[in-house]
Amino acid sequence: MRITLIGSGNVATHIGAAFKNAGHRIVQVYSRNEQNAALLAYHIGAEAINDLNNINPETDIFLISVSDDAIAAIAEQLAPYEKQMVHTSGATDLYTLLAFTDHAGVFYPLQTFSKTKEVDFRSVPLCIEGANETIAKFLTELAQSISNNVYAISSAQRKTLHLAAVFACNFPNYLYHVAQQLLAKQNIQFSLLRPLILETAEKVQQQFPADVQTGPAIRRDVKTIDAHLQQLKGEPELEQLYRLLSQGIIKMDSSETRN
Amino acid sequence: MRITLIGSGNVATHIGAAFKNAGHRIVQVYSRNEQNAALLAYHIGAEAINDLNNINPETDIFLISVSDDAIAAIAEQLAPYEKQMVHTSGATDLYTLLAFTDHAGVFYPLQTFSKTKEVDFRSVPLCIEGANETIAKFLTELAQSISNNVYAISSAQRKTLHLAAVFACNFPNYLYHVAQQLLAKQNIQFSLLRPLILETAEKVQQQFPADVQTGPAIRRDVKTIDAHLQQLKGEPELEQLYRLLSQGIIKMDSSETRN
Repeated sequence: MRITLIGSGNVATHIGAAFKNAGHRIVQVYSRNEQNAALLAYHIGAEAINDLNNINPETDIFLISVSDDAIAAIAEQLAPYEKQMVHTSGATDLYTLLAFTDHAGVFYPLQTFSKTKEVDFRSVPLCIEGANETIAKFLTELAQSISNNVYAISSAQRKTLHLAAVFACNFPNYLYHVAQQLLAKQNIQFSLLRPLILETAEKVQQQFPADVQTGPAIRRDVKTIDAHLQQLKGEPELEQLYRLLSQGIIKMDSSETRN
Repeated sequence: MRITLIGSGNVATHIGAAFKNAGHRIVQVYSRNEQNAALLAYHIGAEAINDLNNINPETDIFLISVSDDAIAAIAEQLAPYEKQMVHTSGATDLYTLLAFTDHAGVFYPLQTFSKTKEVDFRSVPLCIEGANETIAKFLTELAQSISNNVYAISSAQRKTLHLAAVFACNFPNYLYHVAQQLLAKQNIQFSLLRPLILETAEKVQQQFPADVQTGPAIRRDVKTIDAHLQQLKGEPELEQLYRLLSQGIIKMDSSETRN
């Protein structure tokens, strides 16, 4: 398949490399920033452009991986080429593209990417949506060429997934940071917490979080909770956060619906 | 070394197995619950007792791994044997044992244990404290026989570590659960989030959380934050949690002290 990458951020970088490794041809990489485009293009053997007027029409699909606010304007500019067009955004619905083209789809990788860390793309869940059955089938096959975890996900479902990902990824990472800041005050290295953080994530790879919850709140250990709140005196935001999260855990019901 | 386990919970189970695998002899396992004592004792080739009057004095160390509230009473009963005595509690200081014996120490494994999941004990950080230099040295050597990560940690430091572990383990696990509940309403399986959860934890194994933070809050993407808050309408606790965590991320300063 001939693929044109619109964008050169974390998602474009990882998805571009995955496509290239799977034997697809990356025709061009577009980025407003010439240097970013050039860097990614160099790595995946593509041409770099920083002006959409220089788009090569000899391509099969435009993969739009730019900030959510920029998607519509780019879709409008690319629509005249009448190629398959997808975006990679969790928070943007299909209609944003459908406003400009019938060849619309979504290709949303549910993973957190950093440019400095490799990811095994075959394990990345790819959430696919197509404007019609034919497009959905085409995108599913393209997705399966780079991932073993391909799912048909509607725009409504994707919106929920994107929110859930904030709770499952962005917020836990922030809590790791809070833990590090607490340790720093006692001159304790963050590395002491790393095995605990990893094990916490590994536990839920086979089991459900409600079945492996540990800590003072799930034990209703009020004495320890009070001692912790005492330690957080002087940091009202952290105290409030501790209270709110502990209350949530206390109310956790391991019989809740899950799948 | 001859070791007597007081308690048969998750910590006693994993630490007991690690000692046994390292060639130590587990003399007895005590638990108020006869069945729990018998089960663990069977696995590690020890005698089970459910009455402290049946303690075998032919041992080198009592490892007290019971609920925090029960430590003092047990220490009082074991003190007359004049053996080395340690507890495994993150939230309990050394003085709780020192009130009853000079041979006091702490042997705190900083990990989350479940009876149903094996742990590579050599990577578990063991936090050691001794009533004096000799005891600290003795406990450090014992710890090194089962773990590659042994640290000298004071009672004050351990108190902070225990609090930090709640932020780095118990709270993230609860947020995984929240994410699962959000998905369930849209009939999306939790398994879609598992690679994301694992990658989030793996990222901070080499890097610091502040350097790999992603998501709408760190991008100051107010539009997405507002959309997420809208989706959480009707769930005031989750809305408040989302607000509080996002505010924390927005205030994150990647130049903060860290080590």
